[in-house]
Amino acid sequence: MEEINFWISMIATIAFAVTGVLAIADRGVDLFGVLVLGVITAIGGGTIRDMILEAPVFWSENQIYVWMALGASVLTFLTESFFTQPQIYRWMLYIDGFGAALFAIQGANKAWAMDFGLPVAPVILGVITAIGGGLIRDILAGRKTLIMSHELYAIPVTLGCCAYVLILNFFPQYALEGSIFCMLGIFGLRAAAIHWDLRVPKMFITKTR
Amino acid sequence: MEEINFWISMIATIAFAVTGVLAIADRGVDLFGVLVLGVITAIGGGTIRDMILEAPVFWSENQIYVWMALGASVLTFLTESFFTQPQIYRWMLYIDGFGAALFAIQGANKAWAMDFGLPVAPVILGVITAIGGGLIRDILAGRKTLIMSHELYAIPVTLGCCAYVLILNFFPQYALEGSIFCMLGIFGLRAAAIHWDLRVPKMFITKTR
Amino acid sequence: MEEINFWISMIATIAFAVTGVLAIADRGVDLFGVLVLGVITAIGGGTIRDMILEAPVFWSENQIYVWMALGASVLTFLTESFFTQPQIYRWMLYIDGFGAALFAIQGANKAWAMDFGLPVAPVILGVITAIGGGLIRDILAGRKTLIMSHELYAIPVTLGCCAYVLILNFFPQYALEGSIFCMLGIFGLRAAAIHWDLRVPKMFITKTR
Repeated sequence: MEEINFWISMIATIAFAVTGVLAIADRGVDLFGVLVLGVITAIGGGTIRDMILEAPVFWSENQIYVWMALGASVLTFLTESFFTQPQIYRWMLYIDGFGAALFAIQGANKAWAMDFGLPVAPVILGVITAIGGGLIRDILAGRKTLIMSHELYAIPVTLGCCAYVLILNFFPQYALEGSIFCMLGIFGLRAAAIHWDLRVPKMFITKTR
Repeated sequence: MEEINFWISMIATIAFAVTGVLAIADRGVDLFGVLVLGVITAIGGGTIRDMILEAPVFWSENQIYVWMALGASVLTFLTESFFTQPQIYRWMLYIDGFGAALFAIQGANKAWAMDFGLPVAPVILGVITAIGGGLIRDILAGRKTLIMSHELYAIPVTLGCCAYVLILNFFPQYALEGSIFCMLGIFGLRAAAIHWDLRVPKMFITKTR
Repeated sequence: MEEINFWISMIATIAFAVTGVLAIADRGVDLFGVLVLGVITAIGGGTIRDMILEAPVFWSENQIYVWMALGASVLTFLTESFFTQPQIYRWMLYIDGFGAALFAIQGANKAWAMDFGLPVAPVILGVITAIGGGLIRDILAGRKTLIMSHELYAIPVTLGCCAYVLILNFFPQYALEGSIFCMLGIFGLRAAAIHWDLRVPKMFITKTR
């Protein structure tokens, strides 16, 4: 189980770094910027989470995450034309969605296991783990952030974290099944949003003036 | 006394969430963005303060702050046209100014009570408590930040925190009276700025080129 | 030795505050903004580093850094025309490059001494110490960040931190000489970039679309 979790984390880290680099590649970023922004996309969210949790940041204890993110960022820089093929890029979006699902539930789980600010904080920290890195990347790159994009990305993540916290609270005996269920739920919603190009409906958006 | 403090904090949190949401509502933000930005405006400053203080973030110990901010954000989303009425909006600005005064003195007080980096850090952390949440909101929403706006908002806050630290240092026996005095001072200056639409005078602004 | 280190830190702090203020002065910033952005440029990077290290932020233990940054920021505001003279500004750039070199090696050193996430974290934290403050300043001022600028600034810093970590790892007996060597190496590369106006070559930059 631990081992499955580890391998999924590796895949998610790589996917985050790749999609993170692709998101900003069209702005003329140098190799150093690519490394910084790829790594931040991959490990930034978990870093903020751990700083709020007053826990040692996860990559100080296991540096493989940084290495994977660095490697994936360089590879994406070198082979950008491969990853921007519509078919491949679409695959990366799905893997990225899966990564977000995994990171969210992991983040919520870590806060829950530390008995930190139950029941609200695990949801907040799960969401931060999943989207925090992308937010920092967009801010540093001068890009519109996810918060302003009307994409169905953070909403599935938030719903999944809420469901997971409810399960942990009311059916703690199903914690493992619940984590898998919520992860798949987040991924399912996100995959549907990618497949059908769904966005937040207009009635949930404030009017621009 | 504790109880008064608590109720004032609640009002300030709600006011911050409402004005935080109104500040970005004209940009076409979806309901999720409204929740995130409303909550960040209300609790972001105190969160940075506590991270710098290496103290548990305040909303992990008392989640009512998060709930109030969430509720106020949803309400503002649903009833935006109510809050954008000039008269009501003006009231919210005053309450927001009062919230900033309260949060600033609370923040300075917390650092002082923890004997953290006296005498400079209480001033810095008081200011961060009052304006930090709004800064993160503006950055995430792609808005010009308060720092660049020439508004008389951060300056009263800073002066009040300085005065409070001087009182704590030289007249510790008047800590309580001093805190009320400085809070009212900040609020008075901010209210004057709102009422007469005062801004930072030109001679204190660098020339644009 | 300690004393030399202290004086160099003072000079670096002042240089960071001055160049930090000059970088945003042409945007019409008020005196309060100048103070905030000057101080953040000077102490922001070390603050993030210490938050990640879970160490008390350095300026809470020795406030002289804040005072120096405040003083230098006010002075720059008052005498902007002095510092924007081409010859003087060039000098400030060199001193700023020296400051970056010093802060980077100090940052890497602090992480190494705390045995924090070796060997990757000292490099990351050295880079954050040197460039983090400038990044926050640019974000708050709505300016394009260093990451997107193709300047040869962060790259020398990163190479120097890598070299320093290799020396600490393989030749710990030469830690002191190594620190001086790496600092001079960073400064040399940065000075060359200033002198010959070198930038990141096109082949290392992604294509804009």
